[in-house]
Amino acid sequence: MKFPFKTVALIGKRSTPEIAAPLLELAAFLAGTGVGVIVDELTAPYLGENAYTVATLEEMGRTADLAIVLGGDGTMLNIVCALAPHKVPLAGVNQGRLGFLTDISLDNMLPTIGAMLEGKFVTEQRTLLQAKVLREGAESQSALAFNEVVMHRGGASSMMEFEVAIDGEYLYKQRADGLIAATPTGSTAYALSAGGPIVHPALDIITLVPVCPHALSNRPIVLKSHSVLEVLIHRCTEASLRFDSHTRFDVCEGDRVVVSRFPEPACLLHPEGHSYYHTLREKLLWNKTY
Amino acid sequence: MKFPFKTVALIGKRSTPEIAAPLLELAAFLAGTGVGVIVDELTAPYLGENAYTVATLEEMGRTADLAIVLGGDGTMLNIVCALAPHKVPLAGVNQGRLGFLTDISLDNMLPTIGAMLEGKFVTEQRTLLQAKVLREGAESQSALAFNEVVMHRGGASSMMEFEVAIDGEYLYKQRADGLIAATPTGSTAYALSAGGPIVHPALDIITLVPVCPHALSNRPIVLKSHSVLEVLIHRCTEASLRFDSHTRFDVCEGDRVVVSRFPEPACLLHPEGHSYYHTLREKLLWNKTY
Amino acid sequence: MKFPFKTVALIGKRSTPEIAAPLLELAAFLAGTGVGVIVDELTAPYLGENAYTVATLEEMGRTADLAIVLGGDGTMLNIVCALAPHKVPLAGVNQGRLGFLTDISLDNMLPTIGAMLEGKFVTEQRTLLQAKVLREGAESQSALAFNEVVMHRGGASSMMEFEVAIDGEYLYKQRADGLIAATPTGSTAYALSAGGPIVHPALDIITLVPVCPHALSNRPIVLKSHSVLEVLIHRCTEASLRFDSHTRFDVCEGDRVVVSRFPEPACLLHPEGHSYYHTLREKLLWNKTY
Amino acid sequence: MKFPFKTVALIGKRSTPEIAAPLLELAAFLAGTGVGVIVDELTAPYLGENAYTVATLEEMGRTADLAIVLGGDGTMLNIVCALAPHKVPLAGVNQGRLGFLTDISLDNMLPTIGAMLEGKFVTEQRTLLQAKVLREGAESQSALAFNEVVMHRGGASSMMEFEVAIDGEYLYKQRADGLIAATPTGSTAYALSAGGPIVHPALDIITLVPVCPHALSNRPIVLKSHSVLEVLIHRCTEASLRFDSHTRFDVCEGDRVVVSRFPEPACLLHPEGHSYYHTLREKLLWNKTY
Repeated sequence: MKFPFKTVALIGKRSTPEIAAPLLELAAFLAGTGVGVIVDELTAPYLGENAYTVATLEEMGRTADLAIVLGGDGTMLNIVCALAPHKVPLAGVNQGRLGFLTDISLDNMLPTIGAMLEGKFVTEQRTLLQAKVLREGAESQSALAFNEVVMHRGGASSMMEFEVAIDGEYLYKQRADGLIAATPTGSTAYALSAGGPIVHPALDIITLVPVCPHALSNRPIVLKSHSVLEVLIHRCTEASLRFDSHTRFDVCEGDRVVVSRFPEPACLLHPEGHSYYHTLREKLLWNKTY
Repeated sequence: MKFPFKTVALIGKRSTPEIAAPLLELAAFLAGTGVGVIVDELTAPYLGENAYTVATLEEMGRTADLAIVLGGDGTMLNIVCALAPHKVPLAGVNQGRLGFLTDISLDNMLPTIGAMLEGKFVTEQRTLLQAKVLREGAESQSALAFNEVVMHRGGASSMMEFEVAIDGEYLYKQRADGLIAATPTGSTAYALSAGGPIVHPALDIITLVPVCPHALSNRPIVLKSHSVLEVLIHRCTEASLRFDSHTRFDVCEGDRVVVSRFPEPACLLHPEGHSYYHTLREKLLWNKTY
Repeated sequence: MKFPFKTVALIGKRSTPEIAAPLLELAAFLAGTGVGVIVDELTAPYLGENAYTVATLEEMGRTADLAIVLGGDGTMLNIVCALAPHKVPLAGVNQGRLGFLTDISLDNMLPTIGAMLEGKFVTEQRTLLQAKVLREGAESQSALAFNEVVMHRGGASSMMEFEVAIDGEYLYKQRADGLIAATPTGSTAYALSAGGPIVHPALDIITLVPVCPHALSNRPIVLKSHSVLEVLIHRCTEASLRFDSHTRFDVCEGDRVVVSRFPEPACLLHPEGHSYYHTLREKLLWNKTY
Repeated sequence: MKFPFKTVALIGKRSTPEIAAPLLELAAFLAGTGVGVIVDELTAPYLGENAYTVATLEEMGRTADLAIVLGGDGTMLNIVCALAPHKVPLAGVNQGRLGFLTDISLDNMLPTIGAMLEGKFVTEQRTLLQAKVLREGAESQSALAFNEVVMHRGGASSMMEFEVAIDGEYLYKQRADGLIAATPTGSTAYALSAGGPIVHPALDIITLVPVCPHALSNRPIVLKSHSVLEVLIHRCTEASLRFDSHTRFDVCEGDRVVVSRFPEPACLLHPEGHSYYHTLREKLLWNKTY
């Protein structure tokens, strides 16, 4: 991470014109402090005429020292996988309700980010996953996931059948709707709905969560992040491999899906005083009684 | 139910030539006792030349006093929905491992069915569901399910959003992979994998089981069988409505799915001494220690 | 149920002096309409001097046409088991937050109860359970439960081991913290915490929910209310049998616990417009988003 | 770990005379290879007359280079907490069925242990927990747990109420039967019955699993092993703190329970070729179909 931040990339929630006003406000604030501002090419069309440099995610990856996302956790998810490989740290401004990833509120945006430019922030390394499909010897392109990689039967009328190996060692055969490999970040997303545990985001582990398994004793399993998971698909008809919600590969019988930790973690910046447990309480309604 | 059984329909597991030998053996045995034998038109091609009447499911529904299925629970599921509306009772011979629905073992097939022809059997009424899709005022054809009706997002990258009403009264809005309406028979099938309770098959109730719900407090709900469930789909992209594993309708945003009990229950015949709890123990491995 | 109600019994939450003011207000209102008022002997000491007849629960059971409970669901639970055998219908005023059983709010108490005296109410029959312990041939006194009967290992260091039969038929051997037999009313209480389904209160069924079962395939089972459950305890050291939270029997190895439906259902009166689903949404926070 | 092992301690399952024969056979084998044998004082009475040194667990801790336990996982649990603080590695011979901790079968005992004496073994470090109770400033003795520390309401009629902080930061208030802090080793024991995930034993983490929580969104949480958990008890009547199944402290309202990782991990020796996943499959019946 290059600090102080000389160039800051701004990315707004896609197809959301309302993001223009706060984003321009933030851009002006940043420019006023002497920081170079670049704007995501897909956000730019909503901003009207202005003097900021427009860039692709690829270009931001090469030139930005910090990326600030304005939107919700969904927007952040998409951007993290594009920028993390370039080691660009990210911060998130939530447009509406508090997010797990977008923890700067719009109301306090300028003072909070002002403080961050002066070094008042907490840095957090977060595990990313990568996965690829091996079909008849050939290898698909791989993709990254910040929350989870999900293999799922889709709309097929029968459960998938597959076999899982961890670090080359046979784990089990299973019939299920699918299988989730989740990062700690993803433990409060889809994996939680499927019955997985909440995992502290600073841990460097992978959680394997079956989706609606046929065998009732197939439970979530917490594994070392250095484990390599290999899933051999025995039976499926319309199955796919999903990466967060941004990428999807079709898979078929005989395919091998290989999931492992991406070598470079994502780097998130939080305002000072950030509390993961506070967010957890808010999001899971633990502060409400019934 | 017309007893004694004068005409018995025989149906084999589809695309399974091995079923020919036991089915012909059973047909000969039945014919030898003076019972009329009719054979499913999709099974007939596997049987070689013979004198038995070939019939569609529709024709069997009109003429058979009893239908005997040879195969597994999957075969039985398909046939029940076709014959139950005609009030034809069904019995099932399992080809391999003991089934919940096919509880006559191949080894004891002739004496067991011989005894049933003499009236030695247990009759069981089982609830069936029906569901239809309402789209812009128009109504889709409805279909029947013996295990469950499942609404599911399929391979879509986002959860479905929908709203449920019971007997016209608003229950909740929900984001989830989907929603299962299960019969007691279906309680040990997909609904169990999704976290639903086991329901004694003689009960006349419907269980509503969310599939991977976003809200952790969305739990399975057990309802009166006379309840009419209405699901209004707010958001989905590739969702469908599945009936057991035999029928599938696509659904889209704005559709209303209406699920209710089918007026006519299915009638299953079991050999005397049949024990539901025994089957449960066997299938769920309750007799194994660990 | 004798209607119109000529004698109304009032019972306040125990050891709660704050209940005196609304209870006296309600008593005066009832007396003003010409209804006879009797007051629970354990509530009376908090009320100061007054002219109302004081009565035991037993006496109320014989003389009251309606019992009104002021407090929370906990208070209601205790009273239901005492009055239901006498066929006295009950209504509940909640002191604080909305309850499942106490659904008349303090703010609307007088007009709501005024309307009920004129016949504007909804009647609901609710299943009650009874259980007794058989030890060496002899039989313990039996007790009633409105929510659930719980057999639990207590503070013992090892799980209990027991064997369950339903209507004389063997179900399974199990090691667990305990076992819950819940009414539909109790399905949103302890049974829900232990993983049981929500059951519509108008159903007449029993749910058997294992507490922390050793075998992962031991799931909640929904049974006919006419079923008789018999639990034979193989191993335990400090176990007990709990009825809601009002009664507790110690149990030991060799004991047989017999649970069945109490022949007389409880009768609850709700104000018109009462909605079970509304209460469910409120209590389970289904109306909160996250 | 001192290798080669010059002194080996032998411990048999308590109150189990059948353990005498294999234990004496193993002792003779060890003595024959020139290794010093010491025998647990509680096992010795079952062995008849012999020349082996008898020792307390404390003495074994000071003098043994290796401890071999003959029994089941329960026996191992008790011994690990006594010997791990002394850095004595442990191996386990299972008397009956394969255990998670006792993975040397009686049939292969001599060749397997012979190979281990020659250095053919796999070493595994396993996390241990320690906990203590703070009451009115004073501090109870602390105890160790290899599987889990459980705080539980015992036989009380109401749930416990408590508040949890992690590393001094408030997590939540909760009503529940209790709370489990489990090691990875304990993840397949009581924590699994309470709904916790399976955790690979080589991980160094703590899993916090609520037992029958009142709030449905209270899920298992996976934490860094360096976290210090502090539980402040708000309400309870008969609650206790249990360490595996060997130690129990009573707790009461106002007590603070502090749980942390014990600085010294336990060291387990496995035969070469040992497979955790194989044991998992066997114990959870993943190799059985249904």
